[in-house]
Amino acid sequence: MASNGKYNAAKLALELVKDGMVLGIGSGSTVEIFLNLLGERIKREDMEVYGVPTSYQSYYAAIRNRVRVVDLVEYEPELCIDGADQVDAKMNCIKGGGGALTREKIVAKASKKVVIIVDEGKLVEKLSMPIPVEVLPFAYGYVSKKLKELGAEVKLRHGSGKVGPVVTDNGNFVLDCDFGVLEDEAVEETEESVKLITGIVESGIFPKKMIDQVIAGSSNSTRFL
Amino acid sequence: MASNGKYNAAKLALELVKDGMVLGIGSGSTVEIFLNLLGERIKREDMEVYGVPTSYQSYYAAIRNRVRVVDLVEYEPELCIDGADQVDAKMNCIKGGGGALTREKIVAKASKKVVIIVDEGKLVEKLSMPIPVEVLPFAYGYVSKKLKELGAEVKLRHGSGKVGPVVTDNGNFVLDCDFGVLEDEAVEETEESVKLITGIVESGIFPKKMIDQVIAGSSNSTRFL
Repeated sequence: MASNGKYNAAKLALELVKDGMVLGIGSGSTVEIFLNLLGERIKREDMEVYGVPTSYQSYYAAIRNRVRVVDLVEYEPELCIDGADQVDAKMNCIKGGGGALTREKIVAKASKKVVIIVDEGKLVEKLSMPIPVEVLPFAYGYVSKKLKELGAEVKLRHGSGKVGPVVTDNGNFVLDCDFGVLEDEAVEETEESVKLITGIVESGIFPKKMIDQVIAGSSNSTRFL
Repeated sequence: MASNGKYNAAKLALELVKDGMVLGIGSGSTVEIFLNLLGERIKREDMEVYGVPTSYQSYYAAIRNRVRVVDLVEYEPELCIDGADQVDAKMNCIKGGGGALTREKIVAKASKKVVIIVDEGKLVEKLSMPIPVEVLPFAYGYVSKKLKELGAEVKLRHGSGKVGPVVTDNGNFVLDCDFGVLEDEAVEETEESVKLITGIVESGIFPKKMIDQVIAGSSNSTRFL
């Protein structure tokens, strides 16, 4: 069963949560499994848990599961739990398949500790998937050109449920930018070059220095990287 | 008369416009004067002028004045005309009093030549006004903290016509960040440090390398810097 890895990773992460804790809450299907498990525990143990969610998806999943939603103005999360789309051997990650990369990165950076939970199928030797980049709609033409100059093949993301490009929770577009294989040494530099382009809000590159721990689950095991 | 300087600067900039040209069109009161003068010339000389406006304000002013609005996907402006809030002796600028700084910077960077038009009252020896910074509403708490770490006093901009903070044409907040006097040597570095903060979209720092020419007008003279 494909989701067992996600479930097992989420279950192990649950043990890191303590009563009274403020959590950074990522987005995506693995985080949703985590929140459902957390909700059961909050009910069973009558805990109080606070959380800063990073998308409408995880906002509603947090509320459904009795997590008290708070803001970064008042709270600094002790622990951020999030998924990832690719994790390389050095713990560099690519995120943003769900289009929530910017708020995910803000909350991860605002948190004291960041733990990534994934099915082991997300582990790769080197990062290679196209990098999701959030961009102001107005800047699409200019930014595409600059990203191509940096060596990327650029695709404007389309989805379903509306005509035209996907619009993020922040009201922006997502460009999926294929830079080929991203060597460990090039990760930070690429993140910085992309972020410095005017009109780009953020990229889905999460360098290893941002990540404290990765929990990788499979159908019959779970391990910390 | 206070506006004579703006008018004289705009009038001189008008001479740079040629039939068939694609313009980057900044925002603010001086640009509006420029567009009104341009509209008269377009009508008088039956010109065709294309433009990429940087705010709702300059979008409607462009349309009213018969400028054909186009997008950066198809067009690269030959000449960008914009105002500024402060211009130092080296031609570094601070922009964003009108909250349009991000689109202004996108269009300036996308343009082959950038000309700033100001009343000479905007000329200063060194930049010193608080720097407008556009930020995702979600990131306000985190970003304020990081900007304070960089040494700035940070104020969330309020205006009138709505409760709560000003919301930009991109749906974001503006923080006015007082860094004190900004020496020429510190301009590029400060721009970069600010832009690299996750949750910040852009700052109103326009380093001299982006600016080709400044036209400063007073009530009885106009000069190129």
